[in-house]
Amino acid sequence: MDTVNIKMLAEKLGLSTSTVSRAFRGNSDINAKTKKRILDMAHSMGYQPNLYASNLRDRKSRTIAIIVPEFANNFFSQAIHGIEKEARSNGYHTLIYVTDDDYEKEAAFVADIGNGRVEGVVMSVSGEEYQHGYLEVLVKRNIPFVFFDRYYDDVQATRITANDYASSYAATKHLVDNGCTKLAYLVVNKHVSIGKIRLQGYLDALRDAGLPADDTFVVECTNDKHEIDRRLTDAFYNLKPDGVFASVERLAIAAYRFCYRAGIVIPTDLKIIGFSSLEIADLLNPALSTVTQPAFDMGATAASILFDTLRKGLKSTPDEHLTLESILIERDSSKMM
Amino acid sequence: MDTVNIKMLAEKLGLSTSTVSRAFRGNSDINAKTKKRILDMAHSMGYQPNLYASNLRDRKSRTIAIIVPEFANNFFSQAIHGIEKEARSNGYHTLIYVTDDDYEKEAAFVADIGNGRVEGVVMSVSGEEYQHGYLEVLVKRNIPFVFFDRYYDDVQATRITANDYASSYAATKHLVDNGCTKLAYLVVNKHVSIGKIRLQGYLDALRDAGLPADDTFVVECTNDKHEIDRRLTDAFYNLKPDGVFASVERLAIAAYRFCYRAGIVIPTDLKIIGFSSLEIADLLNPALSTVTQPAFDMGATAASILFDTLRKGLKSTPDEHLTLESILIERDSSKMM
Repeated sequence: MDTVNIKMLAEKLGLSTSTVSRAFRGNSDINAKTKKRILDMAHSMGYQPNLYASNLRDRKSRTIAIIVPEFANNFFSQAIHGIEKEARSNGYHTLIYVTDDDYEKEAAFVADIGNGRVEGVVMSVSGEEYQHGYLEVLVKRNIPFVFFDRYYDDVQATRITANDYASSYAATKHLVDNGCTKLAYLVVNKHVSIGKIRLQGYLDALRDAGLPADDTFVVECTNDKHEIDRRLTDAFYNLKPDGVFASVERLAIAAYRFCYRAGIVIPTDLKIIGFSSLEIADLLNPALSTVTQPAFDMGATAASILFDTLRKGLKSTPDEHLTLESILIERDSSKMM
Repeated sequence: MDTVNIKMLAEKLGLSTSTVSRAFRGNSDINAKTKKRILDMAHSMGYQPNLYASNLRDRKSRTIAIIVPEFANNFFSQAIHGIEKEARSNGYHTLIYVTDDDYEKEAAFVADIGNGRVEGVVMSVSGEEYQHGYLEVLVKRNIPFVFFDRYYDDVQATRITANDYASSYAATKHLVDNGCTKLAYLVVNKHVSIGKIRLQGYLDALRDAGLPADDTFVVECTNDKHEIDRRLTDAFYNLKPDGVFASVERLAIAAYRFCYRAGIVIPTDLKIIGFSSLEIADLLNPALSTVTQPAFDMGATAASILFDTLRKGLKSTPDEHLTLESILIERDSSKMM
């Protein structure tokens, strides 16, 4: 394979190799016009910068870590795409750590990261109920981090979330408008921030609609598949809801499976809407109504703030909360019949 | 938080802390009975070993790398779960690298790994058309690796795949048995090993059924969404197939969308089957027939061979090819009407 290298590129342009190589680093003092000329030529000659070689020279890892609770989850995979797009355009690699929603793993990963193998971290957290002192190592080592979707209230860093309260209110109101009066709310853990905020939107929408706004129809499920099935079966037989609002995608899918098994027809007997980033929600039988978070943009925004912080040589991301808008997509599963 | 630590555990057992800590390392000389006693007590006291701390002591990273071409892909996410399960039971962390099917990224990741941040690698490759000299760094540094699903023919290491030829033959025969005579085969790249092997199964099944076995109905699509739509539209209008066999999940989904738009009724007008690890294939409209690879087991087997190699102190995984069985799941999308 006869690859174009930086020397060939420099000769062609009549520039020094050091000038040319500066054009491929995010944070450099090169003239914008020269940079454009270099990148255009690189493009036309099919040159691919070797990120790793430039790492060795400037002794930086040019790597950021992404910490997420789950892998097989459409929200996180789209968010990671957003983060990776930003990383690529800044000349950085990414390393992905999956905590399986396990606080111990998260703490071990952070300790590992503190070793200096990355320059920054984009994370969605798993241990709200625990103490977060282990994040101190990042502060001490000047490794900035940013939270997206799930964050710690007691840790100062930029927090990117969607407008979960408003979306939750809107989704509940949508079901009420379409005739539901016994509206179950499915949640994994109603005590963590996301669960709490979404639950509040649901309760307020019920109250504003003149319906009883209490915990009667709140069904808390764990992450375990069999436990979810058992809880749903109990809840559906006892409460006989005519509407279901699933606060996470997995629970909307579990509700579908329950209806299939029990011979409950969606949306005739029961209407369903769920928080979901499932790209094939429209291909389900029936098509699933969703509250869809701007996952890609949330990831990209988080990464962009991190790179901005790195470029400025700051030690931490700004202590602020940014909110992006989700969209409510009405499909057949919540249709008025 | 009052966590159980190794000292408390040792006191309770009347053992030294060094004996107790040996029980939590994969490769140790501890007596099996003592080990069991320690692990049982740890379990009953709710003790979680701090993997990171033991890393520092034995100066090993206790980390393996997982390299995959794609993230938002059910096959890979299940395979990664299999790898992680093995890693956890061996006391190892995992780092995930996603190449986006980009050979340059794969090479850069491998160079990075060569730095010694991991002890071994489980990988599914992206650069079959290129040279693979960059893997030499792993050999030189005694970092064993194992391939799963996608591998390099010219590199010696264990290769784990599913029985793609037989599955492809069976899926094609299933469509023929259900009445299809104009059977399109959708493929991303028919020149890479997986594409070639699956294509051969399709062609042989057609030939054995007395149907023309050539490239006429082979539709090659790229990974680009719009390009896929254009190719499918062209192919479906020109070839008017009565059956579609998608060699990857993404193309089965694209075929569904095309049928929805074009008013083609599945399975009445067109039958569809696809290679897919989609967990909600049964919830699609209509339920999608699939060839489902044993993704989790493929990942777990690959990791288990890697850990076996590490435990024995060997420098590379055995040069052998292991094949696991996929299953053909007939659902409504390919039903005889």
